[in-house]
Amino acid sequence: MNDHSATQDSPCSLESLDTPCLILDQERMERNIARLRDRLQEAGVAFRPHLKTAKSWEVSRRLMGSPHGPATVSTLREAEELAAHGVTDITYAVGISPDKLERVQRLRGQGVTLTILLDSVEQALAVARVSDPADPIPVLIELDCDGHRSGVKPQDAPLLKAIARVLSPRARLSGVLTHAGESYEARGNAALTAAAEQERAAAALAAMTLRGDGWPCPMVSVGSTPTAFSASHYDGVTEVRAGVFVFFDLVQAGIGVCTTDDIALSVLTTVIGHQREKGWTIVDAGWTALSCDRGTATQAVDQGYGLVCDLAGRPVGDLVVTIVNQEHGIVAARPGGPRLDHEFPVGTRLRILPSHACATATQHDRYHVIGAGQNKVTAVWPRFTGW
Amino acid sequence: MNDHSATQDSPCSLESLDTPCLILDQERMERNIARLRDRLQEAGVAFRPHLKTAKSWEVSRRLMGSPHGPATVSTLREAEELAAHGVTDITYAVGISPDKLERVQRLRGQGVTLTILLDSVEQALAVARVSDPADPIPVLIELDCDGHRSGVKPQDAPLLKAIARVLSPRARLSGVLTHAGESYEARGNAALTAAAEQERAAAALAAMTLRGDGWPCPMVSVGSTPTAFSASHYDGVTEVRAGVFVFFDLVQAGIGVCTTDDIALSVLTTVIGHQREKGWTIVDAGWTALSCDRGTATQAVDQGYGLVCDLAGRPVGDLVVTIVNQEHGIVAARPGGPRLDHEFPVGTRLRILPSHACATATQHDRYHVIGAGQNKVTAVWPRFTGW
Repeated sequence: MNDHSATQDSPCSLESLDTPCLILDQERMERNIARLRDRLQEAGVAFRPHLKTAKSWEVSRRLMGSPHGPATVSTLREAEELAAHGVTDITYAVGISPDKLERVQRLRGQGVTLTILLDSVEQALAVARVSDPADPIPVLIELDCDGHRSGVKPQDAPLLKAIARVLSPRARLSGVLTHAGESYEARGNAALTAAAEQERAAAALAAMTLRGDGWPCPMVSVGSTPTAFSASHYDGVTEVRAGVFVFFDLVQAGIGVCTTDDIALSVLTTVIGHQREKGWTIVDAGWTALSCDRGTATQAVDQGYGLVCDLAGRPVGDLVVTIVNQEHGIVAARPGGPRLDHEFPVGTRLRILPSHACATATQHDRYHVIGAGQNKVTAVWPRFTGW
Repeated sequence: MNDHSATQDSPCSLESLDTPCLILDQERMERNIARLRDRLQEAGVAFRPHLKTAKSWEVSRRLMGSPHGPATVSTLREAEELAAHGVTDITYAVGISPDKLERVQRLRGQGVTLTILLDSVEQALAVARVSDPADPIPVLIELDCDGHRSGVKPQDAPLLKAIARVLSPRARLSGVLTHAGESYEARGNAALTAAAEQERAAAALAAMTLRGDGWPCPMVSVGSTPTAFSASHYDGVTEVRAGVFVFFDLVQAGIGVCTTDDIALSVLTTVIGHQREKGWTIVDAGWTALSCDRGTATQAVDQGYGLVCDLAGRPVGDLVVTIVNQEHGIVAARPGGPRLDHEFPVGTRLRILPSHACATATQHDRYHVIGAGQNKVTAVWPRFTGW
């Protein structure tokens, strides 16, 4: 049975699905969610999951603390999809451009508390211009805690205060937000804990500066998967965001915040040929199915475009996807690793653990959900895409 | 107007589209198509366009010589979409796995001449097993002309003949096919011409070997964009395939088969911030909009994740996208190039020429079509995705 339009009504198995396709191990996912939720609950800090990795209502509702949120998104399209499902507390965690404010206001008109992000006076002016003082747009100031990307330097008190003053009273300053993107480069527990402390301290400092100037700053938001699992305390922080942890991936395993046994996402693929003298097995998962992400290239163990597992999800020797073309993946021993002489005949099914779960998931329009070590697809969950 | 559900009925301009989104310059595309079509017509060889780059009916019908084909595809999903539009002559140019034969037969049952590809006796056995001698499945033997990927070595006469014998009489050997994938690494005209000659000679040799053994081999198919524009003759070849030339991209410009003025595809993006001390402009096109493809990294000019143009499509200094996160692109001077001190205010719209058009297009579900140098969207053409 090659049912390429599988739905919840037509369950099938990993042997019968059309390949390539995306497999989600629900037990691993739920274990990952429980792990972070328990950790943050113990630390007494709120959790605002980032839904950009999953882009699925079924995954989102398992991630959020309630059917109404809180949630973090990276596109207005995600916010619109969540709003359609009744989510009312959403932070859009990418710097706002003025042309997007019409969609922001449309969502707010539907009863969504949609908090936006900015890091400049010019953006604040644009927001204040369209905001209605009777219903002020909630705004977070983005902080640059580690030189990774956008944001005001947390010690730049004049700029923080200038933005706050421009926003008031037409818009509402809700607080500050930062993301320790450079924590992806941290190696070892001490470096991870330091990255988390740098992120926390940046947010706490900026909030203190703003409060000293008379702005209450009820939200102090930090987060990244590596720091969420590494912070020693959350003093001055009100909420933590994290996204990729829901599935984990080889980059996170390389950082050390999970093992390959925690990775809930994989790409199911079929062997379509060999080049035996090179030790190559050729599969039908290329970059359209895996993405071109090479996030482990700079880590201690280079996992290529993905780690090769058998149908039960167990890694097979040191086999990785070493080369990807559009619809071809070349499976071979990890460079420097022992060559595996076992041969997979044409038609053999394999599963590839992703380098970067967000990037791999983006290439697909649905999840085929299975239980841990199980073979049966228990559900098909659609993904949303676009902006 | 931020109409994010733009259709042909609601034309809008590059200033009003929601960003990021994909822009297609129809005049450039049609010039690219005419250039290759004229070249092949003059050489007296048939053209079987590869539709994997476009994945759009509107583009496909402009690429094909007739509404019925011929066409090349990289997934059965593409074949099914084209068949639904009346295309009846399709080559599925990725090695077949036995589990896909049911879908192949379903398409053939709809009147499509769907020719499949293989490079082993085991695949030939699987095809012969399901093929009906009264309606034999047409098959091409894939050749490895340059060590790039799959295929039988063209000089491996015993294997070529063994495959032919296994296929007969239940399936039908239609000929041979090869793709000079390594031509992407060729630099300079002499190297490109040599790659094309190697591709041609491989196909011609294998066809001659098979004909000498009594197999007619009516199809002798070669192709890649670099070789399609570089071959000095096509002796022994019956058809040429090429795909990415329809849009071209920075990789092809780096190889030298086009200039940046020929690139028909771009991603429209909006400036969302700055890190001025680093010379960074931050835009809302990350890897979800551009892809993570870094195909120019090994070329003489590294174009990062894309070359930055103004709204009219003209490159702006030596600005490239140097870093991509999920929804952020960091625009800066090309490493080693002069820093550009001109500043684009928040809200400025830019267009990014893609590193690899196939990969960038895959990230989007539609093309916003414009005329050369024009600002108005004249049509919205949907793309199909999946397998």
